[in-house]
Amino acid sequence: MEQLLRVQNFNVSRDGYGAGENQSFERPFGHADPATMFAWCGATASWPNRTEPGGSRGLDDYFTRDYSRNIGAEIMGRNKFSPHRGPWQDLDRQNLDWQGWWGDEPPFHTPVFVMTHHPRPSFTLSDTTFHFVDADPHTVLAQARDAADGRDVRLGGGAATTRQFLDAGLIDTLHVAVSSVDLGGGSRLWTSPDDLDDRYHHDVVPSPSGVTHHLFWRR
Amino acid sequence: MEQLLRVQNFNVSRDGYGAGENQSFERPFGHADPATMFAWCGATASWPNRTEPGGSRGLDDYFTRDYSRNIGAEIMGRNKFSPHRGPWQDLDRQNLDWQGWWGDEPPFHTPVFVMTHHPRPSFTLSDTTFHFVDADPHTVLAQARDAADGRDVRLGGGAATTRQFLDAGLIDTLHVAVSSVDLGGGSRLWTSPDDLDDRYHHDVVPSPSGVTHHLFWRR
Repeated sequence: MEQLLRVQNFNVSRDGYGAGENQSFERPFGHADPATMFAWCGATASWPNRTEPGGSRGLDDYFTRDYSRNIGAEIMGRNKFSPHRGPWQDLDRQNLDWQGWWGDEPPFHTPVFVMTHHPRPSFTLSDTTFHFVDADPHTVLAQARDAADGRDVRLGGGAATTRQFLDAGLIDTLHVAVSSVDLGGGSRLWTSPDDLDDRYHHDVVPSPSGVTHHLFWRR
Repeated sequence: MEQLLRVQNFNVSRDGYGAGENQSFERPFGHADPATMFAWCGATASWPNRTEPGGSRGLDDYFTRDYSRNIGAEIMGRNKFSPHRGPWQDLDRQNLDWQGWWGDEPPFHTPVFVMTHHPRPSFTLSDTTFHFVDADPHTVLAQARDAADGRDVRLGGGAATTRQFLDAGLIDTLHVAVSSVDLGGGSRLWTSPDDLDDRYHHDVVPSPSGVTHHLFWRR
């Protein structure tokens, strides 16, 4: 069974930024407003953090629930995992205690491989185990595929990590939701969604919610 | 856990017909051409009958694979199951041997409840068991929910059966793919997709393949 490497529900601004500038503990997406970026999926019935019943079951719900379908592992960049930079021990003592942004019940429910030049011991929160790997994309992907137990691997971003895997030719499918706001700076995925058209088929699907879903699969 | 009743991948013509006139053994969809009606899903990577590798992984693929997601039982009308009409024993001797159109490996993989005024014994082909029930939509749905073991129930059509369940207010979500051909007659689901807007939210999603996906969920 083919194990795909999939980008799912990656959100970028109209000008192509996955996060703004000046990431901090208080602002994981820098000057970008995550409430705006995630509004389209937060309104759906399948949103994992939904605390009230209801929610839409239209087009956006298909993409929201596909986030976890047949996923056995995630790969993410270090800057998605943490606002810290450089060696863990060079920063304040809180630094090594950092276990991600997601509290005691991270939304991944699989092994997660964090790409970083500063490895640290693995740890587990609920049904998510975080591993820290200092390796190139091919090597990290091989580890994630092993851990995924036959299922697909999700590439979780951020934009710089996704570009690394695009440059290495390793991504099989991408779903990117483009919002109608401009950020003007930050971590950029592309200058235009058409940048990938030489390598990927490309469906453009406007949603009634205001985002435009872009779907890519290999030519 | 809520058990939805879902219509998935139901195909109708631009003028609202799910099948043409004069159904027969040779033409399950009457004068309608199933090759045209199913072209959009047949081109996708997730099409269950795919014999060659490849296939698109764009918008249409999301809908194709959602057909079986979290489905634990199907309900269908007798005319979806068979070209025969009236009591089974009044027809030729082949009639009671009829086991559906789908060969030894039906694509349902769950219990299937066939609504008919002419019950007959249940039988099993591979991992699909067909039951024959002479009852109203509420009663059949209760049986299907029991059999679905906590998962959702798919309402498989045809158009007349779907209208019965719509009239009874039992359908939670509908996905209907509208093609660009007119049939002019047959088994009709609606005069217009907007017929349901008093009771359902409604997303209209044109696909690059030429069909338009209509998604409905309860208001």
